[in-house]
Formats: sequence, structure tokens, C-alpha cells
Amino acid sequence: MTKEKATNITWHAGTVTAEERAAIKGHRGAVLWFTGLSASGKSTIACAVEQVLNQRGCHTYVLDGDNIRHGLNKNLGFSPEDREENIRRIGEVAHLFADAGLIVMVAFISPYAKDRQRARELNPPGKFVEIYCNAPLATCETRDQKGLYKKARAGLLKEFTGIDAPYEPPANAELTVDTGRMTVLECVNGIVAYLKKNGIIPRRTRPALESSSLALRSSQSAERSTGRRPRNRPIPGPARAHAGIIPRRRQSKPRS
Amino acid sequence: MTKEKATNITWHAGTVTAEERAAIKGHRGAVLWFTGLSASGKSTIACAVEQVLNQRGCHTYVLDGDNIRHGLNKNLGFSPEDREENIRRIGEVAHLFADAGLIVMVAFISPYAKDRQRARELNPPGKFVEIYCNAPLATCETRDQKGLYKKARAGLLKEFTGIDAPYEPPANAELTVDTGRMTVLECVNGIVAYLKKNGIIPRRTRPALESSSLALRSSQSAERSTGRRPRNRPIPGPARAHAGIIPRRRQSKPRS
Repeated sequence: MTKEKATNITWHAGTVTAEERAAIKGHRGAVLWFTGLSASGKSTIACAVEQVLNQRGCHTYVLDGDNIRHGLNKNLGFSPEDREENIRRIGEVAHLFADAGLIVMVAFISPYAKDRQRARELNPPGKFVEIYCNAPLATCETRDQKGLYKKARAGLLKEFTGIDAPYEPPANAELTVDTGRMTVLECVNGIVAYLKKNGIIPRRTRPALESSSLALRSSQSAERSTGRRPRNRPIPGPARAHAGIIPRRRQSKPRS
Repeated sequence: MTKEKATNITWHAGTVTAEERAAIKGHRGAVLWFTGLSASGKSTIACAVEQVLNQRGCHTYVLDGDNIRHGLNKNLGFSPEDREENIRRIGEVAHLFADAGLIVMVAFISPYAKDRQRARELNPPGKFVEIYCNAPLATCETRDQKGLYKKARAGLLKEFTGIDAPYEPPANAELTVDTGRMTVLECVNGIVAYLKKNGIIPRRTRPALESSSLALRSSQSAERSTGRRPRNRPIPGPARAHAGIIPRRRQSKPRS
């Protein structure tokens, strides 16, 4: 529980509303919260989604564990308390961005369910989309582009999620993406389809943008930033009927 | 000095650049940093500038002392250390917003010059505009809508800026606004002119927006949020030749 010190303050409502900001943008503000193990593909997919949305004229931003820790959260480490404060601050910033009308992509391990729940509760219903990047630990450990799992296994990194710190999988994420098997493009298409279906982005975009909306740019492909996942190469293993994207409804509700 | 704990991290470059974001917006991202005593008009003017920019189709957001302290910085108080951390976090968030392409207005007392300097240095040259809301302490104390000065004088509030905590006026702000004498509209016009002159917003906007660009909406005027400053009523005292807006060049450079 965060101790609340600030007193003598009153809420100062801004005079431009979220709706007025949305009106000049043509899409709704939202938080897309990517959670999953290290090397499960969170940043890769978030950046790829950002590219596609930007090409559709949507205003986007990515907050991710690697870049925000150099700035806002550089005075935090990886203890349970610091992880909680890390996610708390990021949740607050993500909320500000969504309130400002952006579609903000948050790519953090965010291992604790209660921390993610708290981030969710800052936002109005429908504006927080939890996306579980679900890849088996063994797969993530095989990728291990930064050599972190290796260090953790050797005891050189303490409190590493999946090794000697817990990861609590979401019980009720809006989307679960099978990043162990799917290509980046498949993941992105599923997420963009969700955003259209739920009215966060328009179903149609300008004709000039439509043709390129679901194609990642070759010069700046998401894979380049991590080098982990070839863009369109099928991943070994049988394709699943749902193409690896499991919306929450299909997970949680039995057919009646 | 903030202790830097985070290790084992690498910079993760986003794949959509600030320029690409700007391209779909038509203006540049920037931080407008309003500093000054409590009740000097920071939030009032920031909100009024936001209205005008929003009407011009610019994408804006306001971070201010009253609202951010309920969220991101609710675990900070008003000690010198907490004030420093408060401004540090806000500077980082403002930088993220400007990097995302927004014109973000920051309205905090931010009493220490070195904290403001640190916030400035996070941004590329020309993207941080320090606006000194300069009103005499006596004037601010007369306004005192929240009764804070009264409490501070009575010893009920400790470390209150201007009473028993210092305020270090900017030596080199991009703009100094004489909020002790000027109307809100005069302040806003001066700031918008600066933004045009320095290429942050275009000189011309769409014709449909132009006519209303410098008129505050009566239904949501900035004054409503504080009730302090009537919109167009002249403030007592002689008008100064520069209308109270002093750009930095005129302050710091002698005529050659």
C-alpha cells in the first residue's frame, strides 16, 4: 500500500476534456498493457502494434521496461517493493497518456496480478486492455537475447521473474497472445482486430493508409529491435484454430 | 542526486519516431513549464493556453500540482527532498509527453532553479519553454483562494513557498508573464505568439478554427476552475509597453 503523504491539495479539473482531445484525433485513448515473462515478446509486439497504428493515423506511445527505467524509475531496483512502485508509477503515467487521448502501449513484465489490477482500476471501463504475452518459460529462456536468464540461472541476477521471483499469469486478460508460436504479424493482426471490434480505433481508415495498415515496414520492423522473431516465418508446431489469440470472452465464458 | 539503482537494462528505441508522430499532428511536441508562487496563475494560464491550442487542433495536456499529486506523486510530501523528487518525476513525465508529440503544459511552483534546469535538460533544445508567472508575493497572498497563505502565516502549513520555504526566480526563462497585472487573455496571446514565432505551432491554422483561436470559451473559461482572475477585465495599474510578456532575448541581451 502506498503511503499517501500529499495533503492540502484539491482536484484541479482540466478544462479540455478527454472527449475534446479525442475529437481531434479520431480514435479513443486507451492503455494496452502487455504482460509476460522476459523475452516473451512484449516490447516487440508493442512496437509493431505502434507502427501499424501510427500508419493508420492513430496517436501512440510505448512505455517499456528498458526505456522508462533510465528516466522516471531510475531510482528503483528489482526488489518486490521497488517492483510494486515501478508498476504503480507506470500505471499512473499510462493513465495520464490514455486520458490525454493516446493509445499507450505498456510493455513490462508486471509479474504481480494486484499491481496490474491497480493499474487497470485507474482507467474507465474498456480503456484498459490487458494483453498476456504467453510463451513457455523454456521458450523465453531459449531466446534470452540479453543473456539474462543465463545470468539468473548462474545466480548472478537475483529476483529474476520465472527463475527465483514469481510470475502471476492474468486470470482474465482481455487478450492472450500465444507468443511462443505465433509470428509478430499474427499477433499484431489479432490485437488490431480487437481494437476495431471494441471501438478504440475506427474500423475503416483513410484509403491511402489502409493498404499498408497491416504490413510492417521492412526498414523499421519490430524484429530489428530485438532480432528475436522473424516477421512472417511460421513458427514450428500446429496452427491452432484461434490462431493463438484468445479473447477473454472465449476463455472465461462457457457456451450456453 | 537521485541514486540510480536500475541495472541490467539496455535502451530500447521505439520504432515510431517523434518526427513520425509530429507528421500526423501538424505541430511539434514541447514542454511549456509554468513556474511561480502559489496563486500566481500557473494553472489558470496553462488551462487557458490548452483551450486555445486545442481549438487550433493541437494535441495538448496539462500536468499540474493539484492533480498529479493525487496519482503519480501521492507518496511524496513537501520536504525539500520530496519536492525535488516531485519535480524530477514530473520532468520525466513531461519529457515523455513531449517526445510523444504533445504540447504538455506543466504548472508547478517548482521553486528550485536546479530542479527546473534538470527538467529542461531532458529535452532537445527549443522543446522546453520556461514561463515565469511573475506576481508579487503580496498579490498572490491577497488572492489565496485556497486559504493556504493564511494557514502558512498561522504556522499551520510548514515549508510553504514564499513564507518559510524559498522560491528561486528563473534567471533565464524563455518568457516572463506579469501575472500580477495582466489579464489571462493577454498572457495567453503572448504565449501563443511565442509558440508561433518559434515554430512549435504553425502560424496559420484551418480557417474554421482561426476565428476562435484566441477567444476562450465562455462556458469553460479558465477562470472557472479557480475563480481568481476575470477573463478580460483589466487589472489595476498602468499597462507596460511590452504588455507584461518579456521574452528572454529582451531580458538577457543588451541592444547592440
